[in-house]
Amino acid sequence: MSYKKLDKLNLTLDAYSHALAILGVDEATIMPEGGGNARSNAISTLAAISHENATSPEISNWIKEAQDSSLSEDKAAGVNEFKRLYEQNICLSADFVGKKTQAAMNCEQLWRRLRPTGDWKAFAPALKEVVDMARQEAKIRSDATGLLPYDALIEQYDPGTRMAHIDPVFSTLKEFLKDFLPKALQKQEIRHRKTPIKTLNGPFEIKHQRALGMAAMKQLGFDFSHGRLDTSHHPFCGGVPSDVRITTRYEKDNFLSALMGILHETGHAQYEQGLSKKNSHWPHNKARGMGLHESQSLFVEMQISRSPMFWDWAFALVSEHLGKNVLEGFDVEDVLAHVNLVKPGFIRVDADEITYPLHVILRYELERDLISGQIEVEDIPTAWHEKMVEYLGLDTKDNMKDGPMQDVHWPAGLFGYFPSYTLGALMAAQQWEAMIKALPKAPEQIRSGNFSSINEWRSKNIWQHGSRLSTPELMKQACGQELNPDAFIRHLKTRYGS
Amino acid sequence: MSYKKLDKLNLTLDAYSHALAILGVDEATIMPEGGGNARSNAISTLAAISHENATSPEISNWIKEAQDSSLSEDKAAGVNEFKRLYEQNICLSADFVGKKTQAAMNCEQLWRRLRPTGDWKAFAPALKEVVDMARQEAKIRSDATGLLPYDALIEQYDPGTRMAHIDPVFSTLKEFLKDFLPKALQKQEIRHRKTPIKTLNGPFEIKHQRALGMAAMKQLGFDFSHGRLDTSHHPFCGGVPSDVRITTRYEKDNFLSALMGILHETGHAQYEQGLSKKNSHWPHNKARGMGLHESQSLFVEMQISRSPMFWDWAFALVSEHLGKNVLEGFDVEDVLAHVNLVKPGFIRVDADEITYPLHVILRYELERDLISGQIEVEDIPTAWHEKMVEYLGLDTKDNMKDGPMQDVHWPAGLFGYFPSYTLGALMAAQQWEAMIKALPKAPEQIRSGNFSSINEWRSKNIWQHGSRLSTPELMKQACGQELNPDAFIRHLKTRYGS
Repeated sequence: MSYKKLDKLNLTLDAYSHALAILGVDEATIMPEGGGNARSNAISTLAAISHENATSPEISNWIKEAQDSSLSEDKAAGVNEFKRLYEQNICLSADFVGKKTQAAMNCEQLWRRLRPTGDWKAFAPALKEVVDMARQEAKIRSDATGLLPYDALIEQYDPGTRMAHIDPVFSTLKEFLKDFLPKALQKQEIRHRKTPIKTLNGPFEIKHQRALGMAAMKQLGFDFSHGRLDTSHHPFCGGVPSDVRITTRYEKDNFLSALMGILHETGHAQYEQGLSKKNSHWPHNKARGMGLHESQSLFVEMQISRSPMFWDWAFALVSEHLGKNVLEGFDVEDVLAHVNLVKPGFIRVDADEITYPLHVILRYELERDLISGQIEVEDIPTAWHEKMVEYLGLDTKDNMKDGPMQDVHWPAGLFGYFPSYTLGALMAAQQWEAMIKALPKAPEQIRSGNFSSINEWRSKNIWQHGSRLSTPELMKQACGQELNPDAFIRHLKTRYGS
Repeated sequence: MSYKKLDKLNLTLDAYSHALAILGVDEATIMPEGGGNARSNAISTLAAISHENATSPEISNWIKEAQDSSLSEDKAAGVNEFKRLYEQNICLSADFVGKKTQAAMNCEQLWRRLRPTGDWKAFAPALKEVVDMARQEAKIRSDATGLLPYDALIEQYDPGTRMAHIDPVFSTLKEFLKDFLPKALQKQEIRHRKTPIKTLNGPFEIKHQRALGMAAMKQLGFDFSHGRLDTSHHPFCGGVPSDVRITTRYEKDNFLSALMGILHETGHAQYEQGLSKKNSHWPHNKARGMGLHESQSLFVEMQISRSPMFWDWAFALVSEHLGKNVLEGFDVEDVLAHVNLVKPGFIRVDADEITYPLHVILRYELERDLISGQIEVEDIPTAWHEKMVEYLGLDTKDNMKDGPMQDVHWPAGLFGYFPSYTLGALMAAQQWEAMIKALPKAPEQIRSGNFSSINEWRSKNIWQHGSRLSTPELMKQACGQELNPDAFIRHLKTRYGS
């Protein structure tokens, strides 16, 4: 009956996740300002109770007993994945978690205050404490799992992915991008000289932008009986698989900003909506991890929605919702000039498809070396500057605000998370090539706004597997090859090359 | 340290309430249909866990020890109210609660299916089971509290209120209303013959109706930094005191429907927003009960918003938001003819201020006699019909759909709840008279849209007391008199009399 106990526990944990997800979405979308304190208290209380439930010592016996009984393949997969999470959850003592949370909260609050002025000196001591806790955590997790310390951190976000996979891939990619970026910029420059980029004919009413976004979501396969589109300060995909809430923000004069954001989040949402509905409270039926999740959003955003064939179809959709005169004088190439504009800059979240991975590789290299102790917090500004000059030709000396103080991840203690973004981009390109092999007509289908076969392929190869396989195993099975940068490089060459 | 344990428990219970409140609001306002199953599961799981927490046997000792220690007056009040709720919560066994819930769920589901056709024969057996459980529950609660059985049910919704208070009051009120209703109708008829009721100049765009409603809420004192107005199928006031969510629904051709609903819910919301913010997780700082809550909504709806002085002010507000031509040819009397229209009908929720109490008294008399065993479920249709004829001159024979099958309360097992509606109306009128004594200028202030002194009076006399006193104690302190129908009768005479 140990399996039954685990089943009941998972139902309980799922109820907490459900509440926390919806409370979070409500907070980010419509909660009035004054509701914040009580909301934070409710969320932290429920999160703590849920964590207590998930880490109760008796669970260890239930797992053992369940694994010793004869379970169906599916149930065994559930117990295995639950065990992995349980071990991840219990390896830190409550005391350590308290200290870690305290350090991160201090640092994040300080970061919010100091970021606008970029006061690194005042910020660095708090970050040092967070890094110190992250090193201890990596050591503890390493001892518990037998993984290398930084790998043990990555394991939380991207199960199965190791530095040994990432290092050679990122190294190849970096060398390619450093060489490719100036060429792509030059090509773009020539194009702009011949055909200047056209100004979008705004302003665009938000309700029309929203209707356009929803029409695109619907066509791509978003199920509005199990989800919504709302507005928030930062776009995200939240909620639960049966009720996926995606958000965007609107710019009055640039409808492409919200639309591209919506398309990205739609990719995330499809993964959630596409998970198995049976025993959805068990962890093996939940999404695999950050990297694979990002591959789903980027697949829709980069492989599909920034392509010429997509715009062959979407062009008319834009006119339908925003008015015929909006794209007057534009052809598909003019829209693509907007959505595929390359522009090296300081800020990761504003980066384009070519420069984004360089931002991520920079952070990956720094945090990997921070965790191993090869560099210290005080070395970050110089290292950051040197890498920015080398990778993007940008000087960030004395510009901490637009340099190492731009992201929330490190102050919040999220080490091991950054590589997921670019692993997602690489996996999306690999999935695209594998899919095209199986569905050579996919580009033609996109051109006519038909995404059903594409979604079937994604469902069968990615979504339906939930967390039954590790990320590398799932990719191997779906694409017939290990993680590698070749497909992504080919994709960039096709889109931005000469 | 028992007090500390109780304090921590209340923080936990408050976090569950918070989550359940927001999950409920989200479900009723924006949740997509397909999210319903998972939402119900999450809500029932968390509600069960919360109930388990609230009824743990060890709590009994904590209460005893806390009461034996020397607590401040405020803390003692908190422990006392907590004890009352604890005893209410533990007196039913888990087994009994399970059976009761099952009976109510069966009956409510059946009711939803059968109500449209009014198939009483098919419905009655399920209702019999619910009544049977309610009788058992009343007996158990009676044994635990020493109250009479039906009083022990009322105690859950309106602490301190007894049949001994209600019976003479409802009896006087009933005799008055039976006599007064035809007179008021006659007076209205004469008025309508002289000045026919004018048609509202619709349609009214929903976004304008919403802006009008929000402007009225703001002026009345609703704090939008701690609350919102949303849309739902049935209007309600939900959320938590720091984040009060009220809802309405809009009719295209009648802006008064949504507006009056909003004003009613604003009264509820003000009570919640006006509760003490200190130790808001303790039950003595929460709203007192259903009757008093309804007195707050009706005070705003009936005493304030359906008065001539309110419309002296609100007239311009309507024109400002809906357009100048909307009330063209109207004067305040013409608006009042709409908002104070008397029209006896079958349906309680559609009833006006004069006939509503008769609907409630009918239900009160029947459920009181059902619980005592004086009547049985099979007697309801005839008794209902006879009372409808006697009170409102309406024949409901063979019309179960618009008769005893119109409300969800009985199928859902909510016996003891109905009287609150009319107790609220009586208390609102008593509060108004007490307030006018203290603030003789209140009518003039309303005429200029100034509600601050009125809200101060309500805050000082009602809101700030939370659940420190029983309903009768609080009313005695606020109004200097026991519950009685005189103020309400004077109010009706002034508004509808000759």
